[in-house]
Amino acid sequence: MKLIIAVVQDRDSNRLSQALVWEHIPVTKLASTGGFLRAGNTTFLIGVDDDRVEKVLEIIRKNSQVRKGWMTPHMGGGNEGDGSYPVEVQVGGATVFVLSVERFEHF
Amino acid sequence: MKLIIAVVQDRDSNRLSQALVWEHIPVTKLASTGGFLRAGNTTFLIGVDDDRVEKVLEIIRKNSQVRKGWMTPHMGGGNEGDGSYPVEVQVGGATVFVLSVERFEHF
Amino acid sequence: MKLIIAVVQDRDSNRLSQALVWEHIPVTKLASTGGFLRAGNTTFLIGVDDDRVEKVLEIIRKNSQVRKGWMTPHMGGGNEGDGSYPVEVQVGGATVFVLSVERFEHF
Ligand code: NI
Ligand code: NI
Ligand code: NI
Repeated sequence: MKLIIAVVQDRDSNRLSQALVWEHIPVTKLASTGGFLRAGNTTFLIGVDDDRVEKVLEIIRKNSQVRKGWMTPHMGGGNEGDGSYPVEVQVGGATVFVLSVERFEHF
Repeated sequence: MKLIIAVVQDRDSNRLSQALVWEHIPVTKLASTGGFLRAGNTTFLIGVDDDRVEKVLEIIRKNSQVRKGWMTPHMGGGNEGDGSYPVEVQVGGATVFVLSVERFEHF
Repeated sequence: MKLIIAVVQDRDSNRLSQALVWEHIPVTKLASTGGFLRAGNTTFLIGVDDDRVEKVLEIIRKNSQVRKGWMTPHMGGGNEGDGSYPVEVQVGGATVFVLSVERFEHF
């Protein structure tokens, strides 16, 4: 038995949650915040048998990996027509810890 | 030293918390949500010496185990006198992970 | 790789967070509550390489250790000039668990 603790961005949280539930993997979610730029994120607690760890990591990777996005820096501010074009940014990403569980109980 | 991570339903949270404090077992509680039907739950972090793990598991079991409850499915909805009777449902339950703590500090 | 789980009082949380970020140590913070008197606290999740554990513990200790403070018991209540003087109290403190991480992934 392993406990997987995964910190993902809020924007990926629902999608990841649904993907895990779809595979019948129970999750517990906690609202969290990050120390650097990642303001809002979600911490997942996922308990799985050893032989399903790879599967869960694959699901997390697919649903939260860093990917390209577009952001318009001046969007919503400044005057229009000021030469503000969308720029490419990185979004997403997950930090994942796999811990060994000494004992697991379900009451 | 062990770290016990226990996810219990919100309705059991206060009772469990009080039972642990009564035994002088410090707890940290985090608001959490579950992936399946268990919308609101509480995640307990409980640090204990190895020889108290059984005691804590017993307290968690007693205060959060699955038990029978009654729910009236149409309560608050539909027209009255429509033959809506209470049905028996299962409530409660806890998911518990016991982790080995490599080092413990209290500043 | 270790996962450090540190529970600190809310009043120390921002200072600790900034001290860790200053050292380029990523943190995830979760709002939590304590079972005894410590109403509001913050749970830090900090993943670090083994050789940085001491450094992180030192930063936590410096930014959250129990220290003397002053509190005026009747401050804001009662009538003035009632003989209410500041009293010395203990503030701060941190509970820290260091766990071994079996596997770490960053997507
Ligand atoms: Ni199915
Ligand atoms: Ni006592
Ligand atoms: Ni720098």
